[in-house]
Order: sequence, then structure tokens, then C-alpha cells
Amino acid sequence: MGGAGAEAVIPLAAVVGILYALWQWFVVSRVKVSGYYQSLDTGNGYHGGPVFEMDRTEEDAGEGSPDERIIMAKCAEIQHAISVGAKSFLFTQYKYLSIFMTFFAIVIFLFLGSVNSFSTKEQPCTYTQNQNCKSALANAFFTTIAFLLGAFTSVFSGYLGMKVATYANARTTLEAQKGIAPAFKIAYRSGAVMGFLIASSGLLVLYISINLFKVYYGDDWEGLFESITGYGLGGSSVALFGRVGGGIYTKAADVGADLVGKVENNIPEDDPRNPAVIADNVGDNVGDIAGMGSDLFGSYAESTCAALYVASISSFGINHNLSAVLYPLLISAMGIIVCLFTTLFATDLLKIKAIPDISSVLKRQLLISTVLMTAGIAVVTFAALPKNFTIFNFTNDKHVKNWHLFLCVSIGLWAGLVIGYTTEFYTSNAYSPVRDVADSCRTGAATNVIFGLALGYKSTIIPSFAMAASIYTSFRLASIYGVAMAALGMLSTVATGLSIDAYGPISDNAGGIAEMAGMTHEVRRRTDALDAAGNTTAAIGKGFAIGSAALVSLALFGAYVSRSGIGSIDVLDPRVFAGLMVGSMLPYWFSAMTMKSVGTAALKMVEEVRRQFNNIPGLMEGRTKPDYASCVRISTNASLQKMVPAGFLVMVSPLVAGTFFGVEALAGLLAGALVSGVQVAISASNSGGAWDNAKKYIEAGASDHAQSLGPKGSDAHKAAVIGDTVGDPLKDTSGPSINILIKLMAVESLVFAPFFAEHGGLVFK
Amino acid sequence: MGGAGAEAVIPLAAVVGILYALWQWFVVSRVKVSGYYQSLDTGNGYHGGPVFEMDRTEEDAGEGSPDERIIMAKCAEIQHAISVGAKSFLFTQYKYLSIFMTFFAIVIFLFLGSVNSFSTKEQPCTYTQNQNCKSALANAFFTTIAFLLGAFTSVFSGYLGMKVATYANARTTLEAQKGIAPAFKIAYRSGAVMGFLIASSGLLVLYISINLFKVYYGDDWEGLFESITGYGLGGSSVALFGRVGGGIYTKAADVGADLVGKVENNIPEDDPRNPAVIADNVGDNVGDIAGMGSDLFGSYAESTCAALYVASISSFGINHNLSAVLYPLLISAMGIIVCLFTTLFATDLLKIKAIPDISSVLKRQLLISTVLMTAGIAVVTFAALPKNFTIFNFTNDKHVKNWHLFLCVSIGLWAGLVIGYTTEFYTSNAYSPVRDVADSCRTGAATNVIFGLALGYKSTIIPSFAMAASIYTSFRLASIYGVAMAALGMLSTVATGLSIDAYGPISDNAGGIAEMAGMTHEVRRRTDALDAAGNTTAAIGKGFAIGSAALVSLALFGAYVSRSGIGSIDVLDPRVFAGLMVGSMLPYWFSAMTMKSVGTAALKMVEEVRRQFNNIPGLMEGRTKPDYASCVRISTNASLQKMVPAGFLVMVSPLVAGTFFGVEALAGLLAGALVSGVQVAISASNSGGAWDNAKKYIEAGASDHAQSLGPKGSDAHKAAVIGDTVGDPLKDTSGPSINILIKLMAVESLVFAPFFAEHGGLVFK
Repeated sequence: MGGAGAEAVIPLAAVVGILYALWQWFVVSRVKVSGYYQSLDTGNGYHGGPVFEMDRTEEDAGEGSPDERIIMAKCAEIQHAISVGAKSFLFTQYKYLSIFMTFFAIVIFLFLGSVNSFSTKEQPCTYTQNQNCKSALANAFFTTIAFLLGAFTSVFSGYLGMKVATYANARTTLEAQKGIAPAFKIAYRSGAVMGFLIASSGLLVLYISINLFKVYYGDDWEGLFESITGYGLGGSSVALFGRVGGGIYTKAADVGADLVGKVENNIPEDDPRNPAVIADNVGDNVGDIAGMGSDLFGSYAESTCAALYVASISSFGINHNLSAVLYPLLISAMGIIVCLFTTLFATDLLKIKAIPDISSVLKRQLLISTVLMTAGIAVVTFAALPKNFTIFNFTNDKHVKNWHLFLCVSIGLWAGLVIGYTTEFYTSNAYSPVRDVADSCRTGAATNVIFGLALGYKSTIIPSFAMAASIYTSFRLASIYGVAMAALGMLSTVATGLSIDAYGPISDNAGGIAEMAGMTHEVRRRTDALDAAGNTTAAIGKGFAIGSAALVSLALFGAYVSRSGIGSIDVLDPRVFAGLMVGSMLPYWFSAMTMKSVGTAALKMVEEVRRQFNNIPGLMEGRTKPDYASCVRISTNASLQKMVPAGFLVMVSPLVAGTFFGVEALAGLLAGALVSGVQVAISASNSGGAWDNAKKYIEAGASDHAQSLGPKGSDAHKAAVIGDTVGDPLKDTSGPSINILIKLMAVESLVFAPFFAEHGGLVFK
Repeated sequence: MGGAGAEAVIPLAAVVGILYALWQWFVVSRVKVSGYYQSLDTGNGYHGGPVFEMDRTEEDAGEGSPDERIIMAKCAEIQHAISVGAKSFLFTQYKYLSIFMTFFAIVIFLFLGSVNSFSTKEQPCTYTQNQNCKSALANAFFTTIAFLLGAFTSVFSGYLGMKVATYANARTTLEAQKGIAPAFKIAYRSGAVMGFLIASSGLLVLYISINLFKVYYGDDWEGLFESITGYGLGGSSVALFGRVGGGIYTKAADVGADLVGKVENNIPEDDPRNPAVIADNVGDNVGDIAGMGSDLFGSYAESTCAALYVASISSFGINHNLSAVLYPLLISAMGIIVCLFTTLFATDLLKIKAIPDISSVLKRQLLISTVLMTAGIAVVTFAALPKNFTIFNFTNDKHVKNWHLFLCVSIGLWAGLVIGYTTEFYTSNAYSPVRDVADSCRTGAATNVIFGLALGYKSTIIPSFAMAASIYTSFRLASIYGVAMAALGMLSTVATGLSIDAYGPISDNAGGIAEMAGMTHEVRRRTDALDAAGNTTAAIGKGFAIGSAALVSLALFGAYVSRSGIGSIDVLDPRVFAGLMVGSMLPYWFSAMTMKSVGTAALKMVEEVRRQFNNIPGLMEGRTKPDYASCVRISTNASLQKMVPAGFLVMVSPLVAGTFFGVEALAGLLAGALVSGVQVAISASNSGGAWDNAKKYIEAGASDHAQSLGPKGSDAHKAAVIGDTVGDPLKDTSGPSINILIKLMAVESLVFAPFFAEHGGLVFK
């Protein structure tokens, strides 16, 4: 396949993906949600539209029986409140972010510009001999532009996800009145809108940027792809704040709501009398949806940038073989097409008849996309790559054959599946690990917590081996390029992964809306079933996110080492080992900050909820309505205040290490944070997922064993609720943010590598 | 100082230390505990002596008022029951261990013997040129002997500690009747008996072994000190099983007793009606005392072996400068003398007048010993070491001056103090971190657990920097020898560290005996105060243990790398990175096993205790006595069954990695386990310590804030008890065992390095 073929295939696939997403959106939009409230804009959160004041809504609603119209109007109203709250939070967050991004863009420009004292003179290339490359100042400028582009795309991804999810939640609830299958389809289609839009637009923006940058860079591909790495940094910076901020928001609300509602006042989850209930549902959208969208977009952008950078200093780049250099983008383009076919199985080909079908359909999505993609990888590999080529391998080159790269990408893809299925085994209540945790609730919350922690620790075993095997193989076959391509292999089915992932919080919201709108038990049972499956897919998504983050970070780490001009990183260099020691501590420091933030914010939320229950007469009896907006405000403020120091720690650590202690110490820091962070993230996510599903297992009471522990309100159930609450910040704030910590520190080091190589290590000089 | 001077100083200091310990024992023994039961031997645990049947004891007891005699007899009786239970457990454990040790000794002999096909021919030395060294077979034989000696000394250390502690506990209780000061002194003196006996006998056995081995090895110091490393392996292997077995024992009993006693039946801690109470008190002695004694002995033996090994292949060894080679032993000898003076401050010079004095005296012990030892290091360094010398530094030699080594040892010593004080800050309820955790109990157990976990994570920050700084400095100054000496510096005050450490469980037991013997509130208040201070010192001790373990492991790791003949360990070697990934997972796997073991055993204990409360009439009212022995049996069996797989994981991992995946993969594995394990261990120990003291803070109610959370039985207190229970396995089973995991894997790799270098890496060959 020539360069022109590749040029055509990439944007084509991206456009097809976008069109497909829009079509899905159109299908979702045919479910009508209406009510007179739509015109109200109550500002920051839900201020007091007429929820639960039924007499008024009847006149204004559309067709259908009066009862149906009431319910539809209520759903619309709650949806509106959630959507307004989420939008207002995201806008405030983006305001903070824009200040930070501007500041950091200046830092990038100044640091990188200073590499060659802001000279505009061209310089000899590092890897391509006898040729001049663009000035360091030009690289600084284009890196800054790429950074801003990445940040913007990431903001766009997160916002879009939130828009889709808050559009789909009430529609899922309404479809649940018809049955489990239509509800599932709407939730899944909505997830697919987000998945395809993010995957496709990420690819498209990157493709366009490369082509625009090439207008300036011409034949200087070293500089071109070095600047493009800024795109990954921008994407991940936004993702960091999105995950941390969103994670604190959602869990402050969730923990606060649970502590007072379920534990103290014995009212069910999502009960409209609970003042924190709107904040809780807003949280699902800003944390699990917007945060996660930015996160996976970041991973995708970074692994592509790492692969492109290494390719550009390999024989591909030196010989200017465009379709070979664009191989990473071609793999992603193929991924979009494969995921498109895969989605058809969920939305059209496979039938959902009963509740147990849901999780089997979701699980089969993963398997189908993996199998199809393996074939897709073969096609792309043999079409785009020459039979033999050499890959940059630190001090020497590595001779590689095209089928080696087929193996690299495939092993990443399949390792992802192994990690996903392992996660499912440890977090789904269909298997013994979660059931053991549920059983330990018999003796109270303490044993529940002990068993849940042990489960999380244990769940790191198989993923670690899977990662070690794919790292070893891909590294051995094609050095650091192989690792980057393995990461992209794992992420190649990201559109499906995101669809499955977004499906979860949408279902969760749908359940919340059903409860708040006072719909029948049958509807609530259906949305609960959707949600339980979503819990497991969320855990699977986190497994993918952390697995790919580990591979991506290693690839970025390798690129960083090469860019900073050091040939090897000796563990027995005192700077490296000291770095390893401090680096392995960073995920703990970061987790301490995020968990304490959730805890503190939850305490405030609890006080507010208690205050309302005590001071608002008739609230407990459902006669008056709570002040939802004050709870939304507490979550918003807490999250915005607390995300700053945590984000600061991550962004500043590599800069301090590189500037003061030099490239070797920074290399140690990155490796330490990577290997230690992976374990913290996996164990935190899985412990949390297991506690959540152990609680759901007791609540559902679907077996004799489960019934012997329940029902809701029993001592064992109370112990399970405590475990679930402990797990909330672990699985939705600390755990998933650590992926980004690892990736972001690595990509930041790569971007600043020229600066560190030139001016770094002040203390040891 | 000549070789003869060094020869004389080392055994002299060891003998002085032993005599001092015996004198302290004599002082302790002057507190009389008597009763007629002493002749009873009830076999495995406490079968049913006449505790709480007051009428019978009066006739048989000695002097004093009838009341006093009753109480003394009861104390004696309980002490006897604890002592019998502990002895019986340790004997059973040692039976298991002797099988394992025999088996492993054979493995060592066969593996190392096979290096040169069991030939008895001498071989050219590796580092000393133009000289022949003893055969690999001889090294295999002497390594095996050293291994068995180390194992035996470790068993002896643990057993001795247990003997002293079970001798001292009731004596402390009785002295508490007189006042806080006499009780403190007895507890502290008993701790000192253990501290000095272990430190001195460890030094003496090592010294004698070296001299005996030298009779055979003559001038072949390479072989001599290579074989001696077996001593460290033996010491740590026993320590591993001691910590894990003892840890599971004590926490199964403790958690089980708390869950039913405190949480369900609302009876106080150590209440004689609780059937698990004897098992709980036995546990303190076999876990915290015997396990910890073996652990610190192991650290000491390993760091000495690592230093000796590196010294032997440096200019000291090649020039046969004996007093320079024995420098590590001289530092330890000086440590014993310094600690002896330090102890006088606690037992004679500083006065305890009120409860707050206790922890300040204990803390001052650390500071005094550190200051004095700094001077001691200077004396030893300038007397024993030549001004200039070269130290082995992988591919080249490093030129070192004697004052460089003074800095290395001192920075280790002071880093230990920093780690110890940091630990105190995070686990003592005199400071805000623990008070914040206590405050979070207002909103229930979930927030308590979240805050406690966050505290543990946060507490890794300063220790990581302290370790990184001491590693960097000592490594930079004197390569891997500097690191080994920094570790020995941290351990040089081990006699004081162990005294303080052993003081804790002795006071804990004393409190238990006071409660069970029905002594006055005032006595219980005093023993509680001793115990609360002991909780913090136990945490400090764990801080030291993990800090020194990190340094020791790095030193052993360096020695391993040099012995296996690889010049450097490149993080970007795929084998190394895959090893790092798997290694960083091992502490999690290990923790999962140990925590689940405690959880499962505790569940069994709960069932048994519930059964007794339900089936034994009059038990709750105190009219009949429980069946203590069945609880002792449950703890014993659970601990012996579960310690085997956990120990197996640690012992087999390096063998598998080295044999099948080669020296580079094993190097990665060790580094990964080291940096990740340190964080897991610190955070687990400190979270656990904080929860425990948060609970004690609420119970003591010493401030307005504490009173607002209490009293015992309040909702906040119940939440605090749940946190304490979660922390139990973290702080006393998983956390402290991970030190040993790290050290043991490193020393095992060093011992087997000749084999791996010759036959390792089967898969990649």
C-alpha cells in the first residue's frame, strides 16, 4: 500500500466512525422525552423545578395516558436537572483548566525554547545524518500548539460523552418500561455514540495535525513527530483533571448520600427525599463518563505519539516511507471499522431475552472485537509495512520483519482481553471471589473489608503476568516500538471498550431516574439488572485502561530515554535507584490526596444532608422537597479545590526530578511509578468493584446463599454497604486516576526530554 | 587498630552484652510471682486450671494479705497458661520448620554443588588474580552449614524472646499495683533482656563461625565470605515463617476475639469470659515477640553478610586486612556498648512520674542511642579502616576514604531515626493525623477506613525520601558496600530498638493479665498507658525494620548482581522490565495470601466463640469458664497450615525466576519487589497503627474532642473498633512480613547466584 492509500484510508475510517455515531444518536433520539420544564434553566444545578408536584405537570405534557405523561414529564425534569448540573460543573472545571493550560503552554514553550537559547537557526538532525532539522524554537512552538490541540480534543471528548449520557439516561428509563431488551439497546447505542465519536475524532484531529505540521516541517520528520508528542501531553493533562475532579465529585456525592441515606435513615438508593441524589447522578456523568472519555482518549493519543516518534527515528522515518510511519494510525482506523461491525452484534444480531443475557452479550462484544481485530491487524500489517526494516533500539538498530509487528500488536490486543476477563472474574458476583467477600459480611464490616482488600491484591497476579509477557515479547521483537504498538493493539478496540464502559453509568443514571420518578418495581428491577452488568463492564474498562496505560507508559519511557540521549538505565546507578524508590511512592502520595479529598468532601456532604433532614420539616415523609442545589455546590467546590494539588503533584514531579536531579533520576522515578502504580490501580479498582457487587449480590438475593445473607437492612447487608462505601473512592477516584499519573508523567518527560538533556540535573552538576 | 585488636573487641562486646542481659533478667526475676499451679502442665494451651475459682487458691499462695495472694496466684496462673500456649505453638512450628530447613539445606547443597559438577578440585579465584580458591563443592557444603547455623540462631532468638516476655508479663502487672514507674521499668528491662541477648548472640555466633570457617578456607576469603552468606539466608528463612505463622496466629485470635467479644457481646477487651482471650495473649508473644526477634536478627545477619561479602572482594579482602574486613562486626560491637549506656537512661537516669513521661522516655531512647552511636561510628571507623582503600564497584573499583564510610554508616543511622519519628507522628494519637482518623469515625466505619488507608499511603512519603537520600549518598560514596554499611548503621542500635519493641507486647500482655485477674481500674489504667506507648513504639520498630530491610535488600541485590557476573541491570532490557513488573506484584500476592488467611482463621474463631457463648450455660454471666484450649487450637492449626503456601511463594519465586528466566529477570524481580514492597509494608503498618490508636484515643477520652467521640460503645467507638480490626492483619501480619519477603528473596538470590550464573535462564537459552 502506498503513502496515498494510507492517506486516504485514515480519514475515511474516521469519517465513517463519526457518521456511524451520528446515526446511533439519531436512533436514540427517536425515544421522546418531553415536558414543559425544558425551557427552564436553573443555573448551577437543580434549583427547584416542580419535581413531584404532579398536579401541575399534567396540563403541559404531550400524548399518552395521564399516568404515562406524568412519568415522562418527571423523567424529563430529572434528566434536565442532571444535565444542567453536569454541564455547569464541566464548564466551571474547564474554566479552571483553561487557566492551567495557558500557564503550562507557556512553560512548555519557554522550557523547550531555551534548549538552544531561543535561536531560530536550523540545527543538525540527531538521528538522520548529514541533514539539517528545524530549530529547537520551532519545535517548542509546534509542541505547544500540539499540546493545546490535544487538550482541546480531550475537553471535547469529555464534554461530548457527558452530553450523550445525559441525553440517553432518561430515554433508557422510559424504554425500560417496555422491557429489558429495548432499554439495553438504547443504553448500548448511546455508549456507542460516545465510543465512536471519541475514537474517530481523536484519529481525525491527529491525522489533520500531522498533515498541517508537515507543511512547515517538510522532510524534517524528527522534529515533526517530536512536536506531535505534545498532543498526547495535552490529552492526558485534561484527562488527569477530568478523572480526579470528576472522581472526587461523584464519590463525595455518592459516599455522602449513602452514609446518611442508606446507613442512618434507611431510605433506598436514589430516593428523591435524599438531598444528595441529584449530585450523585450528576457525578456519574462527570466522573465515570467525561473523566473516562478523556482518559482513554489520552491513552490512545499517547500510544500513537510514542509509536510515531519511535517510527520517525527508525528506518521508516529516515527513508520517508509514509504509510509505514502512519502504521499506528492505520491500526486505529482498522479498529474503528472492526468495532463498527462488532457493535452490530449487540444492537441487532444478538438477542437479549432475559437478564442473564446482558452480561453475556457485553462480554461477547469484547471477544468478537478481539477476534475480528486480529484479522484486521494482519491485513494492515502486511499491506502497510515493508517485509524487512530496522527499528531504533537505543544504541543500535534492530532488524525486524513485518510479521513481528503483527505479533506485537496482537499480543497487546489479547493481553487486554485476558486482563478484561480476569477483572470480570474478580468483580462479578457470578463467581466465587465476590461471593466469598459477600459471605464474609456475616461477621461484619471488618472481615468484609479485609476480604475485599485481599481480593484486590490477589487480582493483580494475572494482569501482571499478562503485562510482563506482552512487554517481554513485544520488546524483544521490535524494541520500544513493539511496546508502543502492543499498547495500540490493546487500544485498537477502544470504540467498543468505550461503548461498553459508557453503557454502565448511563444504566446507573437510568435506575436513579426510575427511582426518583417513582416508576414501578419492574422497571427498577430492569434498570438494576442493566446497572449490575454495567458495574462489571466498568471494572473491565478500568482493567483495559490500566493495562494499556502500563504499556503506553513503557513506550513513552523508552522514547524519553532515547530522546534524552542516554543509552541505558542501570538500576545500580544510585540516581536511578533513588528515583525508583521515590517513584514507587508517588502513586501512594497521590492516592492519599485523592482519597482524603473524597473523605473530607463526603463528611461535608453528610453534614449538609443531615442538616436538611433535621431542618426541613416533612422531608423524611416526602411532603417537601430537599435543596438539591446546595449538595451540587458542595461536590463542585470540593472537587475543584482538591483536584488542583493532586494534579499539581503529578505535573510537577517530573519537572522537578528532571530539572534538579537529571535524566537518570527521572528515568528511575518513571519506572518506579509505573510498576508500583499499576499494582495500586488494579487492586484499588478491583477491591472497589468487588465490594459494590458483593452488596448487589446480597440485595438481589438470587440464590439460597445470597438470601441467607440478606435482605436489605440485615446486618450482613449493612456490613456490605460499608465495604461498598470504602470501595467508592478506591475504584472511582484513586484507582483510575493512577493510570493517568503513570502515563502523564511519562509523556511529560518525553516532551521535556530535550530540555532535561540540555539543562537538567542542576543538583548533581 | 590491628587485626588482633578487632579479634578481641568483637567477642568482648558480645559477652558484655550477654552478661548485661542476664543481669537485667536477674533484676526482673526479683519480682515474685507464685501460686500452687506452677507444677501443672496442661499440654497444648490452657486446659482448665482453676482460674477464677478463688476459694481454692487462698490456701496455697505465699505471703501478703489474702487479697494480694489471690491476685498474685491468679496472675501466676494466667501467665502460666499463656506461657504454655506460646511454648507449645513454637515447638509445633519448629517441628514444621525443621522439616523445611532440612529439605532446603539439601536444595542448597545440591544446587551449589552442581555449579562445578560436584568436583572437589580447586578453581581459580574470581576477584583475586593468580590465586586458587576452594572448590564449588566446598562452598556448597559450608554455605549449607552456615544456613543451618543462621536458622538455629534465629530459632533461638525467637524462642528466647518469647521466654523472656512470658516471664515478664505478669511481673509487669504486679508492679503496676505499685505505680507506673516500677511497671515501666520491669517491662523495659525485660525488653532489654531480649534486645541484648539477640544482638549479642547474633554477633557472637557469626564471629565464631567466621573463625571456624577460616580454619578450612585459610587465605581464600572469597569462598569464606561467600559461604557465610548462608547464615543470613538461614536467619531470614526462619524469620519468614516466624513472622507469617506468628502473625496469622495472633491476628486470627485478636480479630476473632474482638468481633464477637467487643462488637457482638459488648464485653471489654481481655475479658476472661471471652474464650479467645488466652489465644489472643499467646499470639502477642509468638507473633510480635518471637516473630519480630527473628526478623530483626535476620536483617542484622543479612546486612552483615552483604557487607562482609563485598569487603572480601574489595581491597580489604584482597590485601587480607582483617580488622578492615571485620569493620561491620566492629560497628555492631560498638552498637551493643552504646545501647548499654542508652538503656541506663530508661532504667535508672530518667524518672517516670506520670503517664505522658512514658512515651517521651521511649522516644528519647532512640535519640540518645543515635547521638551516642554517631560518636561510636567515628571511633570505630577511624580506628579500624585505612585512610584510603578501594571498594568493589561492579565493572571497576571505587576509591574511598575512611570518612566516606563514617558518612555512610551515619546516614543510615539517622535515616532510621527520621523514619522512626515519622512513623510516630503518623501513628501516635498525640498528633493530628490519628486524631483526624478518630474524628472521621463520627460518620461511621466507612469514612474511618477511607481516612486510615489515606493516612497509611501518606506516611510513605518521608520514609521514601529518607531511604532514597541514604541510598543515593551511601551508594555514591562507597558503592554497594556503602549501602550495606548504611543498613548496618540503621541496625547498629538494634539492641535499643528491640528493647523498645519488645516492651510493647509485654505491656499489652500485662494489661490482659490485669483484666483477667480482675485487678483494680487503676492498675488497668496504668497498664493501658504502658500499652498505648507500646503501640507507637511497635510502629516505630516496624518503621526501622522496613527501612533497614530496604537498605539490606539493596546491598544484597548489589552483591547478587556482582556474584552472578553481570555488570549492569538495564531497565530497558525486556527481561529486566518484565521482572520488575512481576516483582512489584509479589508483595500484593503475598499480602493477599496472608490477609485472607487471617480472615478465614478469624471466621473460624468467631464461630467457635459464638458456639461457646451459646452452648456453655453461665459463661456470659461469668459463672462458668470458657474452653480456652479449643481457641488456642484453632489459631495454631490455622497459622501452621497457612504459613506454608505464603512461605513457599517467597522461597520459590527467586528459584523459579533465576533457573528458568535467568539472572537479569531475577534482578528485575528483586528490584520490583523491593520498591513496591517497601510502600505496601509502610502503608499497611501505619494504617493499622493509626486505627489502633484512634480507637485508644476515643477510649481514653483524654481531651474534649476525644470525649465528644466516646465513650466506649458509642457509634463512633464502634466504627473505630471496625477500623482497628481491619488494621490488625495489615499491621501485624502482612505489613511486617513483607520486610522479610524483600530481604529473603535478595539473600536467597545471592546464595544461589553461582548456580544461576552457571545454569540459569533455561527458557531463554
